[in-house]
Amino acid sequence: MTISMYQASVPAALQMLASLSAIIDKAVAHAAARKIEPAVLLNARLYPDMFPLVRQVQLTADHAKGMAARLAGIEVPKFPDTETSFDELKARLAKTTDFVKSVKPAQIDGSENREIIIPVPNQPLTFTGQSYLVNFALPNLHFHATAAYAILRHCGVEIGKRDYIGKLPS
Amino acid sequence: MTISMYQASVPAALQMLASLSAIIDKAVAHAAARKIEPAVLLNARLYPDMFPLVRQVQLTADHAKGMAARLAGIEVPKFPDTETSFDELKARLAKTTDFVKSVKPAQIDGSENREIIIPVPNQPLTFTGQSYLVNFALPNLHFHATAAYAILRHCGVEIGKRDYIGKLPS
Repeated sequence: MTISMYQASVPAALQMLASLSAIIDKAVAHAAARKIEPAVLLNARLYPDMFPLVRQVQLTADHAKGMAARLAGIEVPKFPDTETSFDELKARLAKTTDFVKSVKPAQIDGSENREIIIPVPNQPLTFTGQSYLVNFALPNLHFHATAAYAILRHCGVEIGKRDYIGKLPS
Repeated sequence: MTISMYQASVPAALQMLASLSAIIDKAVAHAAARKIEPAVLLNARLYPDMFPLVRQVQLTADHAKGMAARLAGIEVPKFPDTETSFDELKARLAKTTDFVKSVKPAQIDGSENREIIIPVPNQPLTFTGQSYLVNFALPNLHFHATAAYAILRHCGVEIGKRDYIGKLPS
């Protein structure tokens, strides 16, 4: 009559990491076809004080690994934010996917009441595992993945919501 | 050791409906302060063939009510897409919130294996309740909510991710 914390979290993270990687493939092809410098897309943003594409992809990956690690009660791996190419961003997504897959159901299941503290300056956020998942981790994951999508869409890359949803479980 | 389908779905929908309503308040204030015609923001989009703000808000509401109704196995209420003002969009979000709140845990709980069919032209999508929730309903909800946010951000409305996440459960 319920779903496990693993089922409610990891499949969503893996879906977004895979979708974003495939969307990057379309951005690379678009840039090549139009002779656009990849750096132009990587540094594109929707407003001057908003994060550019490269950071939105890094943050999507960070929220994916943060969600899996925090629910499992293990240390969040640190990946340096050094990517300057689409290949490097794809490698970041692949490395994140490997980490998320390495976290097993037995580590995450039962975390619905685990206390999870997010270190925000001045006022750390304290959640139960369940509220962290539903009200913070998943919204953040999708927020940054959609921001990455929206930047590329705004730059004319031919992507649609099907690319965002990606491959559905058969 | 698990969470209920209700806990994994309805709080996320109510969070986004409330956030989007508060974001619209900021858009209204921004338009008034800058003497921008509200219709300019309502019809703003990130690319010529992408949906404008008004449609992104309608779609966020539609995915919120669709998720609650489909998981509960009840008919999805139809709301006509007739909004042409921010007040009307806020009323749409409020009406949707009322509907989502009217769906009770007992109706949604136990829906993880319920067959859910989404009528897509040519090839309907068939899900279990669990996969529908994790891989389709929540991603769609956040996709359109973030698209609405991104359009307003691109138009210079002073909003940040805190507005998107909104009020966290205390």
